[in-house]
Amino acid sequence: MTSDTNSNLSLFFEPRSIAVFGSMKEPQGEGITAMRNLHDFGFRGRLYPISRSSAEVLGTRAYPTVDAVSDAVDLALVITPPPTVLPIVEQCGRKGIRAVIVATEGFAETGPEGASLQRELVETAHRSGTRLIGPNTLGVLNTAHNLVTGAYRIGSNKPPIGGVSYCTQTGFLTFGVHPIRDLGHPISKICDFGNKCDVNEADLLPYLADDPSTDVICMHLEDIRDGERFSRAAREAAARKPVLILKPGRSEAGARAVSSHTGSLAGDDLIYENAFRQAGVIRLRTWREYWDIPKALSLQPFPKGNRIAIVTATGGAGVMLIDAATEAGLVAAAFTLATRNELETLSPRLANNPVDVGPQMSLREAPFTIYEEVVPVVLSDPNVDCLTIVCHFGQPIVKVLTGLAPRISRIGKPVTVFGYGIDLPEMQKAAREIEALGLPAYLDLETAVKALAVGTAYSRIRARLRAEGR
Amino acid sequence: MTSDTNSNLSLFFEPRSIAVFGSMKEPQGEGITAMRNLHDFGFRGRLYPISRSSAEVLGTRAYPTVDAVSDAVDLALVITPPPTVLPIVEQCGRKGIRAVIVATEGFAETGPEGASLQRELVETAHRSGTRLIGPNTLGVLNTAHNLVTGAYRIGSNKPPIGGVSYCTQTGFLTFGVHPIRDLGHPISKICDFGNKCDVNEADLLPYLADDPSTDVICMHLEDIRDGERFSRAAREAAARKPVLILKPGRSEAGARAVSSHTGSLAGDDLIYENAFRQAGVIRLRTWREYWDIPKALSLQPFPKGNRIAIVTATGGAGVMLIDAATEAGLVAAAFTLATRNELETLSPRLANNPVDVGPQMSLREAPFTIYEEVVPVVLSDPNVDCLTIVCHFGQPIVKVLTGLAPRISRIGKPVTVFGYGIDLPEMQKAAREIEALGLPAYLDLETAVKALAVGTAYSRIRARLRAEGR
Repeated sequence: MTSDTNSNLSLFFEPRSIAVFGSMKEPQGEGITAMRNLHDFGFRGRLYPISRSSAEVLGTRAYPTVDAVSDAVDLALVITPPPTVLPIVEQCGRKGIRAVIVATEGFAETGPEGASLQRELVETAHRSGTRLIGPNTLGVLNTAHNLVTGAYRIGSNKPPIGGVSYCTQTGFLTFGVHPIRDLGHPISKICDFGNKCDVNEADLLPYLADDPSTDVICMHLEDIRDGERFSRAAREAAARKPVLILKPGRSEAGARAVSSHTGSLAGDDLIYENAFRQAGVIRLRTWREYWDIPKALSLQPFPKGNRIAIVTATGGAGVMLIDAATEAGLVAAAFTLATRNELETLSPRLANNPVDVGPQMSLREAPFTIYEEVVPVVLSDPNVDCLTIVCHFGQPIVKVLTGLAPRISRIGKPVTVFGYGIDLPEMQKAAREIEALGLPAYLDLETAVKALAVGTAYSRIRARLRAEGR
Repeated sequence: MTSDTNSNLSLFFEPRSIAVFGSMKEPQGEGITAMRNLHDFGFRGRLYPISRSSAEVLGTRAYPTVDAVSDAVDLALVITPPPTVLPIVEQCGRKGIRAVIVATEGFAETGPEGASLQRELVETAHRSGTRLIGPNTLGVLNTAHNLVTGAYRIGSNKPPIGGVSYCTQTGFLTFGVHPIRDLGHPISKICDFGNKCDVNEADLLPYLADDPSTDVICMHLEDIRDGERFSRAAREAAARKPVLILKPGRSEAGARAVSSHTGSLAGDDLIYENAFRQAGVIRLRTWREYWDIPKALSLQPFPKGNRIAIVTATGGAGVMLIDAATEAGLVAAAFTLATRNELETLSPRLANNPVDVGPQMSLREAPFTIYEEVVPVVLSDPNVDCLTIVCHFGQPIVKVLTGLAPRISRIGKPVTVFGYGIDLPEMQKAAREIEALGLPAYLDLETAVKALAVGTAYSRIRARLRAEGR
């Protein structure tokens, strides 16, 4: 299956045409819901709803079988009852469809009978060189291709086009149940492996490593199917871009829960921990890290070292961030004399890290202008590798950061922004706007520095892997 | 200062009358802003704006000096330039005002000169038996008393009346910069110690331990002024209600940052760690824990043991929660045979912890009704001490939990709810509504179980302290 892997995988993410198998009954038929999601996302390829009862679905001509379609079809999306799936996969094989997403639930996750049916699916597909994602999956999303699959109403949940690609073993960590649009997550592709009967992490790692639209790979894996192939693929990918993995089942009880969730064995966690370290994979531990850390590595350069500066409007937050940064492996930068002198010309109380700009703000007509003066000085200090800015999230800081963003970008060191306020919708709006400037915005304090620590860890990993690869 | 401490402190939190010193100039004078905040909160006591230039402020008669007020005044709020504060404190002493909040910045936090002025303030106040909060503070909030102080526009940020009381050493962890209204935090009182020149943690601990409106005490302390008095007060308070403390400066770099923030010494962290353990204080480590954990201990009973059950619509989240629970010191409950049997009558796949109700939901007309059947069975199991429910946050679960909340309450074991979704405003609305039912609602996965772990830790602490106290 390896030779054609990448070309077949691109059929999943960049199909020019999709056949949709599933109930086309209004209002909640799985097939018509999937069609509607694709419409909402603005999918521009051809859609072939397969229906024996309708001649037309949402204004698109329907076909009684996929054989009746005269053109070639890149991808099939199957959301029909379990007993009907096998004949459909056969039909797709005959039609020359090389990529099938089986969204249908009720296979290996239900017990031995479902597992056996699932094995049959794979054998049938492989006989015709067809690759399968699923079953029991929401499928895929590709922002640049306006593509989303899935049998629930998710068409409104379209995030901005970005560089983070996610692969998961649970719909829980996908576009299906996270407000990626409202949070403005910069996403390239998402793949829900579902039961992972065929396409798995070892396929997606090389595909995403090659994918120019992906600059960070983030995976949730409850198990790993082929350890050796995975390790090789992970190591090759990690030499090119960050590979972040959330692997639950760390505790014994968690491992038992994995096994009852997907029927797979979580395995001894220490073995994974070592394998990840050797492959250069960075391990994430929490739900928040999974969603909030990759974006920082995508939007910003990697820190060249581990020395962090904080510029904050509140000394209290500065102290807490230094604690969190230290615990994440960073050190508080000691400014050069030149930087201290320059900051002292603004105010003698600004010369230390964290730089507390709060008192200066109370003295100014336009309080937020202090960031314009302090941030470039601090970030340019040769002793500073990265910076977290702490500020009130509202329109004044959005305006200031709009001006600062190009200057920050020219200095070429990574910055994250942690924000606070008393009006939650206003804060969330500002966060989205700041992130649209390319500056990762956080409403969670510790994650803002943890993201920079992960970037630093990746810098080291990349250097090591490239040295070893020479 | 100890004999009258508690009666004086109640003047800060339940004043019948407040004299406000500060610029009454429209639109942004500090005094008029403070008056406006009090109006917005619905403060029902008497207000005495002190102004030489206005006869009336926001429809309230103004007085040229506080001596001109004929009635007794409980509390003075001072937001005037530093050189004017000392004479005002003297004036307040003469007038018999026993509680003064000095909001003004520019004292010990600015250097030796400010520190010396600050010492003079305290000496002057103590000569007349007056207690001081501040300087450099947002002051206090008391939801039940419609009281808020502070020179910024914060009058809109009024949270629901609840049982959590916060004390902090930074305005950053107060009503001033956190959306406590929008997040629906159930709050009783908040006190920003500011520079902590007089009233400090050792005063507030006995006050809040005695306060019937407070059932959880949560503090942020960059330093502790009187270790012995603090330890005694903390221990006495912890025997009655949970005392949770966020103490930054854990790292050496963090400790240095503390010293540059407030001029105080963070001290050796191990000493604090031991003191906290002996006093029965539970230490919090992150910004999110500070805001999100206390509410669970206030809204729900304390777990009697450490055995947690998870009822979840997504197996993936169940696995992650078991990991997080284990790492926080809980264990996954093993259901009794009776519970397993009862769950199996609903579906054979429901008998394990975590209970994955997802597949059952897809089979039902009204998917969320499965929670009504499963939650009481699981929570009533004698092997279960606490429960986290995982569900889509929207109106269907709000409806179901509205019916379930009284049943949960009768069973008498603590429950937290973690929710997800694709529409952030809808999720946040549901979270507030669920919390209004008395069920702590989380949009952060790990915190939902961490809160139960902290409750369990407190159960143990209380038992120990009470046994030792006998």
